[in-house]
Amino acid sequence: MAGRNEETLGDLTLLGNQHTKYLDHYSPDVLEPIDNLHSGRDYFVKFNCPEFTSLCPKTGQPDFATIYISYIPDKKIVESKSLKLYLFSFRNHGDFHEDCVNTIMDDLIKLLDPRYIEVWGKFTPRGGLSIDPYCNYGKPGTKYEQMAEHRLMNHDMYPEKVDNR
Amino acid sequence: MAGRNEETLGDLTLLGNQHTKYLDHYSPDVLEPIDNLHSGRDYFVKFNCPEFTSLCPKTGQPDFATIYISYIPDKKIVESKSLKLYLFSFRNHGDFHEDCVNTIMDDLIKLLDPRYIEVWGKFTPRGGLSIDPYCNYGKPGTKYEQMAEHRLMNHDMYPEKVDNR
Amino acid sequence: MAGRNEETLGDLTLLGNQHTKYLDHYSPDVLEPIDNLHSGRDYFVKFNCPEFTSLCPKTGQPDFATIYISYIPDKKIVESKSLKLYLFSFRNHGDFHEDCVNTIMDDLIKLLDPRYIEVWGKFTPRGGLSIDPYCNYGKPGTKYEQMAEHRLMNHDMYPEKVDNR
Amino acid sequence: MAGRNEETLGDLTLLGNQHTKYLDHYSPDVLEPIDNLHSGRDYFVKFNCPEFTSLCPKTGQPDFATIYISYIPDKKIVESKSLKLYLFSFRNHGDFHEDCVNTIMDDLIKLLDPRYIEVWGKFTPRGGLSIDPYCNYGKPGTKYEQMAEHRLMNHDMYPEKVDNR
Amino acid sequence: MAGRNEETLGDLTLLGNQHTKYLDHYSPDVLEPIDNLHSGRDYFVKFNCPEFTSLCPKTGQPDFATIYISYIPDKKIVESKSLKLYLFSFRNHGDFHEDCVNTIMDDLIKLLDPRYIEVWGKFTPRGGLSIDPYCNYGKPGTKYEQMAEHRLMNHDMYPEKVDNR
Amino acid sequence: MAGRNEETLGDLTLLGNQHTKYLDHYSPDVLEPIDNLHSGRDYFVKFNCPEFTSLCPKTGQPDFATIYISYIPDKKIVESKSLKLYLFSFRNHGDFHEDCVNTIMDDLIKLLDPRYIEVWGKFTPRGGLSIDPYCNYGKPGTKYEQMAEHRLMNHDMYPEKVDNR
Amino acid sequence: MAGRNEETLGDLTLLGNQHTKYLDHYSPDVLEPIDNLHSGRDYFVKFNCPEFTSLCPKTGQPDFATIYISYIPDKKIVESKSLKLYLFSFRNHGDFHEDCVNTIMDDLIKLLDPRYIEVWGKFTPRGGLSIDPYCNYGKPGTKYEQMAEHRLMNHDMYPEKVDNR
Amino acid sequence: MAGRNEETLGDLTLLGNQHTKYLDHYSPDVLEPIDNLHSGRDYFVKFNCPEFTSLCPKTGQPDFATIYISYIPDKKIVESKSLKLYLFSFRNHGDFHEDCVNTIMDDLIKLLDPRYIEVWGKFTPRGGLSIDPYCNYGKPGTKYEQMAEHRLMNHDMYPEKVDNR
Amino acid sequence: MAGRNEETLGDLTLLGNQHTKYLDHYSPDVLEPIDNLHSGRDYFVKFNCPEFTSLCPKTGQPDFATIYISYIPDKKIVESKSLKLYLFSFRNHGDFHEDCVNTIMDDLIKLLDPRYIEVWGKFTPRGGLSIDPYCNYGKPGTKYEQMAEHRLMNHDMYPEKVDNR
Amino acid sequence: MAGRNEETLGDLTLLGNQHTKYLDHYSPDVLEPIDNLHSGRDYFVKFNCPEFTSLCPKTGQPDFATIYISYIPDKKIVESKSLKLYLFSFRNHGDFHEDCVNTIMDDLIKLLDPRYIEVWGKFTPRGGLSIDPYCNYGKPGTKYEQMAEHRLMNHDMYPEKVDNR
Ligand SMILES: [Ca+2]
Ligand SMILES: [Ca+2]
Ligand SMILES: [Ca+2]
Ligand SMILES: [Ca+2]
Ligand SMILES: [Ca+2]
Ligand SMILES: [Ca+2]
Ligand SMILES: [Ca+2]
Ligand SMILES: [Ca+2]
Ligand SMILES: [Ca+2]
Ligand SMILES: [Ca+2]
Ligand SMILES: [Ca+2]
Ligand SMILES: [Ca+2]
Ligand SMILES: [Ca+2]
Ligand SMILES: [Ca+2]
Ligand SMILES: [Ca+2]
Ligand SMILES: [Ca+2]
Repeated sequence: MAGRNEETLGDLTLLGNQHTKYLDHYSPDVLEPIDNLHSGRDYFVKFNCPEFTSLCPKTGQPDFATIYISYIPDKKIVESKSLKLYLFSFRNHGDFHEDCVNTIMDDLIKLLDPRYIEVWGKFTPRGGLSIDPYCNYGKPGTKYEQMAEHRLMNHDMYPEKVDNR
Repeated sequence: MAGRNEETLGDLTLLGNQHTKYLDHYSPDVLEPIDNLHSGRDYFVKFNCPEFTSLCPKTGQPDFATIYISYIPDKKIVESKSLKLYLFSFRNHGDFHEDCVNTIMDDLIKLLDPRYIEVWGKFTPRGGLSIDPYCNYGKPGTKYEQMAEHRLMNHDMYPEKVDNR
Repeated sequence: MAGRNEETLGDLTLLGNQHTKYLDHYSPDVLEPIDNLHSGRDYFVKFNCPEFTSLCPKTGQPDFATIYISYIPDKKIVESKSLKLYLFSFRNHGDFHEDCVNTIMDDLIKLLDPRYIEVWGKFTPRGGLSIDPYCNYGKPGTKYEQMAEHRLMNHDMYPEKVDNR
Repeated sequence: MAGRNEETLGDLTLLGNQHTKYLDHYSPDVLEPIDNLHSGRDYFVKFNCPEFTSLCPKTGQPDFATIYISYIPDKKIVESKSLKLYLFSFRNHGDFHEDCVNTIMDDLIKLLDPRYIEVWGKFTPRGGLSIDPYCNYGKPGTKYEQMAEHRLMNHDMYPEKVDNR
Repeated sequence: MAGRNEETLGDLTLLGNQHTKYLDHYSPDVLEPIDNLHSGRDYFVKFNCPEFTSLCPKTGQPDFATIYISYIPDKKIVESKSLKLYLFSFRNHGDFHEDCVNTIMDDLIKLLDPRYIEVWGKFTPRGGLSIDPYCNYGKPGTKYEQMAEHRLMNHDMYPEKVDNR
Repeated sequence: MAGRNEETLGDLTLLGNQHTKYLDHYSPDVLEPIDNLHSGRDYFVKFNCPEFTSLCPKTGQPDFATIYISYIPDKKIVESKSLKLYLFSFRNHGDFHEDCVNTIMDDLIKLLDPRYIEVWGKFTPRGGLSIDPYCNYGKPGTKYEQMAEHRLMNHDMYPEKVDNR
Repeated sequence: MAGRNEETLGDLTLLGNQHTKYLDHYSPDVLEPIDNLHSGRDYFVKFNCPEFTSLCPKTGQPDFATIYISYIPDKKIVESKSLKLYLFSFRNHGDFHEDCVNTIMDDLIKLLDPRYIEVWGKFTPRGGLSIDPYCNYGKPGTKYEQMAEHRLMNHDMYPEKVDNR
Repeated sequence: MAGRNEETLGDLTLLGNQHTKYLDHYSPDVLEPIDNLHSGRDYFVKFNCPEFTSLCPKTGQPDFATIYISYIPDKKIVESKSLKLYLFSFRNHGDFHEDCVNTIMDDLIKLLDPRYIEVWGKFTPRGGLSIDPYCNYGKPGTKYEQMAEHRLMNHDMYPEKVDNR
Repeated sequence: MAGRNEETLGDLTLLGNQHTKYLDHYSPDVLEPIDNLHSGRDYFVKFNCPEFTSLCPKTGQPDFATIYISYIPDKKIVESKSLKLYLFSFRNHGDFHEDCVNTIMDDLIKLLDPRYIEVWGKFTPRGGLSIDPYCNYGKPGTKYEQMAEHRLMNHDMYPEKVDNR
Repeated sequence: MAGRNEETLGDLTLLGNQHTKYLDHYSPDVLEPIDNLHSGRDYFVKFNCPEFTSLCPKTGQPDFATIYISYIPDKKIVESKSLKLYLFSFRNHGDFHEDCVNTIMDDLIKLLDPRYIEVWGKFTPRGGLSIDPYCNYGKPGTKYEQMAEHRLMNHDMYPEKVDNR
């Protein structure tokens, strides 16, 4: 099988472009999809994003997290540089941890209409506690809806050891 | 989606308040709920709490634990600073390990009426043994009750390695 | 909820007692139960016991293990100091690894009549091999019997890495 | 049971051959099968391949990954040196991460007609994000097709910790 | 319960015997069974064997592996020193990785007629790749046959990180 | 010895103040010193700062680092909340990694006139490489100047393992 | 050599005493020395104390640390249970991290007049930063004074990785 | 202190340039220096390079290594993107491990005329062995020459654990 | 060089002897030396002994430790099986941690008259504290005496992380 | 600098040769040197050898170790495939751990006449103890002789944690 060519690379505006602009406010429009070349098959794509940072909506102090995004694409996959810029756009955005992961998932559902998706944020501690919200989604009326319920029911039964160091 | 505003931040009395009072006795009333903005969706919130300490009810010696709390909210989520103060209030409270985790879960059920919740305590050793109690709960008469049973049945089948060092 | 008081602490003879006697032979009678204050709920109690030692029945050489005991109590929980003394009583007892874990479980079933219990021993190597026996039990004729079968069927599918160092 | 002899070793052209040629372009034809001596039994063979490297189709910069391949053979198993040379042939090949793992799986399906197979790539980060695609396959119309669906539904519920260091 | 006595120790010829002979060729006959004292109960026995070494059938170069053996005994358990000598007997035996684990399992089935057994080999890399074969078995016509199928279907969904260092 | 009282706590404007302002540009003036109560003794204070982020001066993309600051105080120690705000002020500041650590050290020398100080930044990778600059300083004309030279000469002889994952 | 007898055990009031009182304020008087039986030799004794907790002198919030104490005894060693009670007495004591470690060292110098001593505290983070103070001491006018200077000069050149999780 | 401006950024041709060309042969000319803004101070810059790959000069098979480069700059520091491209240029270059690290160091000495530099390569195993060459250099006739000798004499006294997995 | 023969193996009474007696009291006489075949060279032999256990002299409760013994032999090395039996003989011996390590070193000095020796015990916690005593020795009037002083002065400057789990 | 060519590759008989013979007895003659192209510089070459196995000279049981070899070459470096075959030749050789590492070092000194060399063996446990011998050497009458003494004096002051698992 040949690799991606001009056609399957599509109209990417960001990858390999040196005039990248880093946005100073929450910007879901920066996200760009590309064609999924394997839509005849269910498979997972996971993004590990250890460089996420946002602000506390009440105190303005910075929050830090690793975000894990995992999905089964349908017709589209997300271009990774656009995802990077999108996550960057939370840098000066104020929101609770629980809200951030729900917002990220909602934006990716809107962009990709995926079969299945989940987003897990693991934040650094504030006041001795850390918060790790997790949400997921399966396309309503399909088997992926049951998949989402199944994965939620079995979520995180082995919490990682956390000692704040 | 915009971040939390004044309305959705609600009447928080503790977050960002510099007159925080640390209580010297077990105080479930310090817990404060805030609105869940995503109640149309099942999702998990986990708290990692490595700074829990209480007293032995018989000898008075201090006990130390990491407490992991994980829940699916219904209408309310718990504000994290109030949870921190609540856990602090066990500092001079005497109780067995098994009782502490059950009490924490009971108090959060009363506050939040969550769809599902679980609490796992991992204590430091006394006399060469350490104790790790785990309890969970699903709202009676809902699918979350089955979820609780399912998660209990599959609980901790890979115990972490413990060597007391 | 108030912590344990005199009544719920019961007639403990060992905890906080300075005249502890360490027994020089296998002594199941040293085990002491206390009341389970949460018998309306299924929950797990786990003991991590990295200081277990017994003797080889054939050669007399000492064996070392970490014992993990996990159970769902019914009316009684085991008092932890009595468990410590019980495990100590294997110090001069000769038995195979496979027999030790079965014996420990049998003694705790007799003491507590638990809903569910499991015992896992992880021994240090002899002759380049190490042995990790695991047994479990659910009260016959209850759902916990199925639970035991389920957990055995899914036991230890990710063996920890062992390199004898 | 005796070890492999001349007959069961077959017509291997690569193993133990000093005239190995490392190919400079994507070359699925280099793959060689050998007989599965245990086809009466379902069992797994896993390859850990931490030395995979390809090129970005847009920028030409090198990508690095660990590829995990796991399968249940039917009549054939893949000879490991031929697999090594096949993976080497991606060295100057430009393709997206998502496409590489799908291509590897397609080529092995064509070679081996396995009962079940899965391929997981874990790539190093670009722009602060790393991507881990995973695909699997079960022979259509057999129980292995259900197996593939089951494993996809339960895939990677405990993402490894990634901190880009 | 008393420990093993002369009767339950049986006719062991190897344990505690100083005239141990290390065999220079593959020798399944060295394996010795002893009575299972707990055959009324299903339980697991696992052996961790990090000191396994055999030879490549084609090139003669040495291979190294950690072998994990896990089984539910029926009437017999395997005496550990005899298992050690059996595994030693592969030291000068030439066979592929896939064949070694199948052979080990076949020999233990013949010796013990166990209810369930599985063997997992994790080999060091050759040519930058490492191979980890896994096989299992449940007594035909019993629930353990389903157990084997269940465990195979869920095998190794979280491959350990391998970086060849 | 009694703890800090009003006098030794001094005129701290930030610690316990709820009106904290997070600054949007590089702001060394936010740093605040407090009295060192143990200036008769040489001792070390180390800050672990895993939440440092700045911008690339050329491309504007965000950089992430853990900064380790270690010093021997003379008359003053740095108040930790003011240090936190100072480090926050790099959030929208563009500079090379090598320049950031030198700037942080220069600002703390100016504030504290310490006997000895060192700053080590460990950044996440860009383009597959990561950069870890380290600088140190001893008060000129004192034994601490030799100390700085000694520590530089012996710096980082055991680089941590980095695999970009 | 015989073990400790009544004479060399001395007048210990705490070890094995069931009437242990846990003190509610900073109490250096609880410390008890016992005779060093090996004063003809320089040797080290280290205490690992992961259960240290104190309060912030300004905000009252609890702080947590692991304290490492290491010393070369002269005529006396510290009895470990008295050290435990002494460290417990910081539980309701308000002081900065830098002050706590200096105070602990001062109290042990006063009790033991050791040849050499050092105290290292590693605290959990507040506001995203953690602080690890370290102080040491050698008896003035002896070679241990140079030892203290030498160890300070070479202190902590490989900071442990800290990521606040 | 202000961040880098146009002047101190200099004439960089690669950083932020989208027309990056990845070279297909060993190319030391691609390296670019930039001004060291802190040449009045000795400090270290370290590069962690886990994505190095070259070819075996005899067999043509690919080799993989993590390269650690650490130096004290004099007038110049190396621009990191040019270093990345330089290391990439070994991708199709055949040389022994021992030669690669010496060549890299020679090229950087020629480019930067640094006060001190060291290069450590940690390669993946071939034939069960892995090789980790280390070389260093101090400017002749300066104290850095002694520094190089000192660091060589104390090199790697705690070899990392390597088990080829 | 040929391996050990009958002569250089000497009169070992324990190695390979099946009539091993495990002693029930402290027994330094069980130690056996063998000839050092390399006495023309200084070299180190280290024993890792993670299965050490003794009793508390006051309460009788068991203590557990890993003992590390490291020495430069002169004319004799210690036979390892005799060392194992010697360490076993502490099993029912009551002594403080500080005394155990000094006793072990004294007995080995008496047996071997080594050029240099050191003993480090790392014990499991009691009451939340663990104790790690370390002693060493160099033959008086030789350079090894300075070596002992040098190693004590630089002992354990990077305490291992201990969290009692 | 060009890579190795025919001349600098020399008369290697083993590398890339498919007719490799694995020897069945201790064979120092299999070692082959090649020219050191950087003899104008002191640098280190380290071999990590986790696949070493020999036999116990008394009982015949197999021993396993990781061997670390590190040296500063003079005129010659050792060809790695010949080193692999040399280490293989201990496979059926009986010798004590202490003797093996001294023999390996003696053979490499004879082959290479290196400026400096050291050999460290880390063996798996027998009878609950493991042994790690270490020897080193510097060319007599040169500064490397002092280097050897210096490195021995500072050897292994931080023993790795060993728990026999
Ligand atoms: Ca941690
Ligand atoms: Ca522990
Ligand atoms: Ca541990
Ligand atoms: Ca630990
Ligand atoms: Ca081990
Ligand atoms: Ca291990
Ligand atoms: Ca990492
Ligand atoms: Ca590894
Ligand atoms: Ca890493
Ligand atoms: Ca990384
Ligand atoms: Ca942390
Ligand atoms: Ca951490
Ligand atoms: Ca490894
Ligand atoms: Ca490896
Ligand atoms: Ca812990
Ligand atoms: Ca271990």
